[in-house]
Amino acid sequence: MTNSIKKLINRFRKLPSVGQKTAERYAFSIISMSDDEIEEFLSAVREVRENVKFCSVCGNFTDVTVCDICSKRESDIITVVAYPKDIVAIEKTHLRTSYHVLHGVLSPLEGRGPEELRIKELLERLYGDVSEVIIATNPDIEGEATAMYIAKLIKPQGIKVTRLAQGISMGSDIEYADEATLSRALETRVLL
Amino acid sequence: MTNSIKKLINRFRKLPSVGQKTAERYAFSIISMSDDEIEEFLSAVREVRENVKFCSVCGNFTDVTVCDICSKRESDIITVVAYPKDIVAIEKTHLRTSYHVLHGVLSPLEGRGPEELRIKELLERLYGDVSEVIIATNPDIEGEATAMYIAKLIKPQGIKVTRLAQGISMGSDIEYADEATLSRALETRVLL
Repeated sequence: MTNSIKKLINRFRKLPSVGQKTAERYAFSIISMSDDEIEEFLSAVREVRENVKFCSVCGNFTDVTVCDICSKRESDIITVVAYPKDIVAIEKTHLRTSYHVLHGVLSPLEGRGPEELRIKELLERLYGDVSEVIIATNPDIEGEATAMYIAKLIKPQGIKVTRLAQGISMGSDIEYADEATLSRALETRVLL
Repeated sequence: MTNSIKKLINRFRKLPSVGQKTAERYAFSIISMSDDEIEEFLSAVREVRENVKFCSVCGNFTDVTVCDICSKRESDIITVVAYPKDIVAIEKTHLRTSYHVLHGVLSPLEGRGPEELRIKELLERLYGDVSEVIIATNPDIEGEATAMYIAKLIKPQGIKVTRLAQGISMGSDIEYADEATLSRALETRVLL
């Protein structure tokens, strides 16, 4: 393989979950694209880097100062997420809330404390008309710890704080559920 | 989602087998990369487009006039493939042959005849010291037709022409093998 193809393969491998074989396919497809397609690809990368910044209210990605959701949606519920990509996932559901992006989770191991997250900014938003804060961090140790930490700060203000339910996935097979998930689903079983 | 992120997601979707969700992950990772990483990524794409051309002998990708394999390897076997990426796959095996890239397969539907492929260039290479031509096109209708067409041209020259064996994959499960593959494996069963 030529050096320039090898280099491009290595670059594609920096994308999330891209292994050698996938990176090879991407590199070969770059070689076969038309000049126009390449130009549009390169300019899309450049544009994202130049235009995308954080919304001054919620911290989501935006091309303007205040993002589309913050400027157009009225909701007295704020869903707190770790990263902007989590908003994309939640927006695929029916719930239409406001959001707040922490840009990370608490992680003593990586030296990330509350000051590194956008927690102060969240607290400042609670003086308005907020009835509930849904904490939608991942169901892992760091996500849980972050949720607990934030809940402790918000609850004294008399605002309802909730957390995503944890249990077995819809359409999944109990036989293949991992032990921790199944334990959690049993502990938090609901009355029929 | 902002317009520039949407645009980048659409660009990533042009890569082979990349769906919406994967494209979203790639776009978000581009946003989080350092400026240096982005610069190296963009220049790797540009370099590949500027430097990569076809080897004048075999038609494989190369940064120079004659590719590494053609200039360094001596073999009296030529493996014929449809695309340069197939060479990458075959090079992962132990066999060390010369190659010849057709840059496509015969396809009446897409109006691709023998003149569109590098078949003439292959025939010109056979006057040297060639003992065998292995045709390694895909085991589908177009790949088969291409193999048959080339075999018919080469055999009269007294050169051995072979084809990749077809059958069930190593480590696969007969239970899940598709009918066509299993039929072929039965027809071409080998004596133990």
